[in-house]
Amino acid sequence: MEKRVILDRPPAAEADAGHARAPRPLRFAARTGWDLSGNSLASVLAEARGAGRALVDFTESNPTRCGIVEAAHLIAPLGEPRGERYAPLPLGDPAARAAVSRYYQERGLDVDPSSVVLTASTSEAYGWLLKLLAERGDDVLVPVPSYPLLEYLACLEDVALTPYPLLREEGWRIDLGALERAAGERTRAVVLVHPNNPTGSFVRRDDAAALEACARERGLALIVDEVFGDYAHGDLAPDRLPSFAGARQALTFVLSGLSKVMALPQLKLGWIAVSGPPELAAAALERLEVIADTYLSVGTPVQLALPEILASRAPVQRAILSRVQANLAALDAAIAARAGGAVRRLPIDGGWYATLEVPRVHDEDGWVELLVRDEGIIVHPGYFFDMPRDGFLVVGLLLDPDVFAEAALRLVGRIARAISGE
Amino acid sequence: MEKRVILDRPPAAEADAGHARAPRPLRFAARTGWDLSGNSLASVLAEARGAGRALVDFTESNPTRCGIVEAAHLIAPLGEPRGERYAPLPLGDPAARAAVSRYYQERGLDVDPSSVVLTASTSEAYGWLLKLLAERGDDVLVPVPSYPLLEYLACLEDVALTPYPLLREEGWRIDLGALERAAGERTRAVVLVHPNNPTGSFVRRDDAAALEACARERGLALIVDEVFGDYAHGDLAPDRLPSFAGARQALTFVLSGLSKVMALPQLKLGWIAVSGPPELAAAALERLEVIADTYLSVGTPVQLALPEILASRAPVQRAILSRVQANLAALDAAIAARAGGAVRRLPIDGGWYATLEVPRVHDEDGWVELLVRDEGIIVHPGYFFDMPRDGFLVVGLLLDPDVFAEAALRLVGRIARAISGE
Repeated sequence: MEKRVILDRPPAAEADAGHARAPRPLRFAARTGWDLSGNSLASVLAEARGAGRALVDFTESNPTRCGIVEAAHLIAPLGEPRGERYAPLPLGDPAARAAVSRYYQERGLDVDPSSVVLTASTSEAYGWLLKLLAERGDDVLVPVPSYPLLEYLACLEDVALTPYPLLREEGWRIDLGALERAAGERTRAVVLVHPNNPTGSFVRRDDAAALEACARERGLALIVDEVFGDYAHGDLAPDRLPSFAGARQALTFVLSGLSKVMALPQLKLGWIAVSGPPELAAAALERLEVIADTYLSVGTPVQLALPEILASRAPVQRAILSRVQANLAALDAAIAARAGGAVRRLPIDGGWYATLEVPRVHDEDGWVELLVRDEGIIVHPGYFFDMPRDGFLVVGLLLDPDVFAEAALRLVGRIARAISGE
Repeated sequence: MEKRVILDRPPAAEADAGHARAPRPLRFAARTGWDLSGNSLASVLAEARGAGRALVDFTESNPTRCGIVEAAHLIAPLGEPRGERYAPLPLGDPAARAAVSRYYQERGLDVDPSSVVLTASTSEAYGWLLKLLAERGDDVLVPVPSYPLLEYLACLEDVALTPYPLLREEGWRIDLGALERAAGERTRAVVLVHPNNPTGSFVRRDDAAALEACARERGLALIVDEVFGDYAHGDLAPDRLPSFAGARQALTFVLSGLSKVMALPQLKLGWIAVSGPPELAAAALERLEVIADTYLSVGTPVQLALPEILASRAPVQRAILSRVQANLAALDAAIAARAGGAVRRLPIDGGWYATLEVPRVHDEDGWVELLVRDEGIIVHPGYFFDMPRDGFLVVGLLLDPDVFAEAALRLVGRIARAISGE
C-alpha cells in the first residue's frame, strides 16, 4: 500500500579521509538507501488494521486469500517422491520448459522450449534481465502509470528508470513519440506491462510494430511483463496484440509465471520467453544461462509438477475471470445506482484491477483516509501507480463477490455524499 | 568443473558517438561479459561423458544423486494442502524462522528468530548481502583457496573480490596480517567459508576474535558461509570455533540452508542469521526486509514444511557423515596401499571434500586429463579452488562407498605409476 521514497544517491563513495587505521563506521550501500520512515497514509491504515475493525480491503492482490480456487490438487504434486532427485539444469527442467512452450502454443503463440528460462518469480526475471542489459547508470524505459515494483528492482541493480507516458485519452495507448524522446544514449530496454496494471490496457498491434522497429533501430530490448495476459475480459478487440511472445523484430523477453497464470504465487515459478533476431536471442540465452547457473533458484518439485499444473489451468482461469467480471459488474452497478455522476470507472481490456476517477475535492490520500475511517474500506491512491494526475483510486477485483458488491455500494455512496458536502 | 574466466571490465559505458537516430546495435551489460568459449579440459570431459563410457565422477556434489538418504518423507510435506495459502512475509514464515532459530539453539548457539532471514538459496543470500553492503567498485575480501561460485555472484552485483590467503602450513589458518593489508578504503566485508571448501578447515577461536575486532574497527561486515557447519568429522578441536552464529562484536551474517543441512538442494530454502552490535544488526535487517520484499523468492510449501524437515535432520546428517568418513577412510587406505609416497591427503576438520597433493610431473589439467582418459575418473584440478600453487586435486566424498573405494585405488595407483614413468 505504502509507496516508499527512493532517496537520491550520494555521489560515488568518496575516499575516506584520514589514516587507513582510523576506526571507520560500517556503511550500507546507497542502493539500499530507502526512506523507511513510512508516511501518514501508512499510519492511518496501520491504525485501522490494528484497531480490530472489520475492514474491506480492495487492495487485496493475493488470490489465495480470496477463496476463488480450491488449489489442494495443484499443491499435492509437489509432495511426490520424484522431487527427491535434484536435477540442477540452469535454464530449468526440459519437461517444464516444454510445458511453458505448450502453454504458449495453446494460445496460438510460437515459443520454442529452448527459448524458455525458468525463474523463481517475475521479480527474479526482471532482476536477471536488468543485469543482462544494463550497466550502472544505464536506464530502461518504464510505462507510467504502472505497478511500482520496478523501482526497487532497478534500484537494486543500479539501473535508472526513465518514464514514458501512456495516453489516457487514447485508451492508455503508448505515447510513441514521447517514448522515442525519452530514449537516450544510455537507454537499454523498454519495459511494457501487458496488459498494464492497473489500467488493464493491451497494446495496439500497430503500436507494437512501431515499438519493435524503434527498439531494433536503437539497440533496445523489450521486456514485456505479461503476467495478466490470460485475463482479457471477453474477446480482445482485433486491433489489440494479445502477446509479444515469439516477437521477431527486436530482442524480446516475455515474462510470466504461476503467480497469475495459475493464481499460485506461493509456488515460486516464473519464466522468461526469449525471442527476436536469432543471433541476439541466442547470445541472450547463453548469458542468461550463466546467470541462472549462479543462482539456481527454482525448486525441483515445482518444476517437475509444472506440466501437470499448467494442464489444469482452464478451470482456474475461468473461476478468476468469472470473479473479476462479476465484481466489475457490481462496481458498475454501484456507480449507476449511487454515484450521481461523481465517480467514473475507466474502461479496461483485462486484468484484476479497476481504476475510478473521483472528484478532486480531496486529494487521493484524503479519499483513502476518508474511506477507511468512515467505511472501513481500503483502496489504493492513484499515485501509487503514478497516475498522470490527482483524482484516481484503484480497486482490486478479487474479493468475495458478496463482500465486494456491498462494499462497492458504500464506497461509491460515500464519495457521492462527500461532493454533496456531507 | 570448468572454471570460466571473468573478463576485465571495459571502462564505464562511453557515450555513443554520432546522432541519436543512427542505428545502434544492442549491447549486453559488461557484468555478463564472461568468456563462454570453454577450455580444453572442459572439452576433454565433455568428450568422455559423451562417449558413453562408465565414468566415476569424484566431482559429484549433488547429494541426491548419491543414494545416501531416502528423502521421500522429507518431500511429502510440500504437497500438504496448507500450501494453498500464500502468506508473503518478506523475511519468511514466523514458524519457519523459529525452526531455524531452534536448529541453532540445539547446537548451543543463540540465534533469535527475529534475526533470521529466509532466502531461496545461499547464492541468493550472498547476492542480497552484496547489494546491502557494497557499491559498484567496492570490494569484499574472499578466502583463497575456496569455492569459486562467488566470482559470478560478485560480478553480477558489480562488486570486486579481493583475495586473502589461508595458510596451508598452519592448517589453512587465516593470514590475518595479509587480510588486514588486503583491506582497502573500498572494502566492505570479509567472506569466510566455514568450514572452508575444499580445505575442510574451521577457524581458530583466537583468529575469529581478532577478525571480529578488525572488522568492527574497520567498518567491515562478516559474511560467513556455514553450509557445511554440521559436518565436522568427529569432535572439533577445542581451539576451533564451531560457528559464527550469534557473534556480537562485528556485524555478522551467517549463511546456511537445506542444501547441505538436509542434503536437499532441490527444495530451495536457505537463510541468513544476522547478529552483531544491536543497532547495526537492526538496520541491516530493516534493509534486508525491503530487499526480500522485492523478490519474495521462497516457496510457501517449503517454508511451512521447514519445522518438520529440520526436526528430521539427525538421521540425515548421520548418514552423510558416515558416508563421508567411510570414503575418506577408503581414500586413506588406497593411499597407504598404492601411493608409494606419491600422493598425500591434506588433513581436514570437516566437510564433503578431500584435497590430494600430487607430484608436479603433470600440471593439474594434465592429471585430470590423464585420469579421465586412462581410468574414466573425474576429479577437480586444484586451481578450480584457487589453490596456492600447482599440484593439487580435489575429490568429493559423497559417492557410493563401493564405487568410491574401487576408484580411489585406481586413482592413487595411476598417479603412482605416472611418476614411476609408466
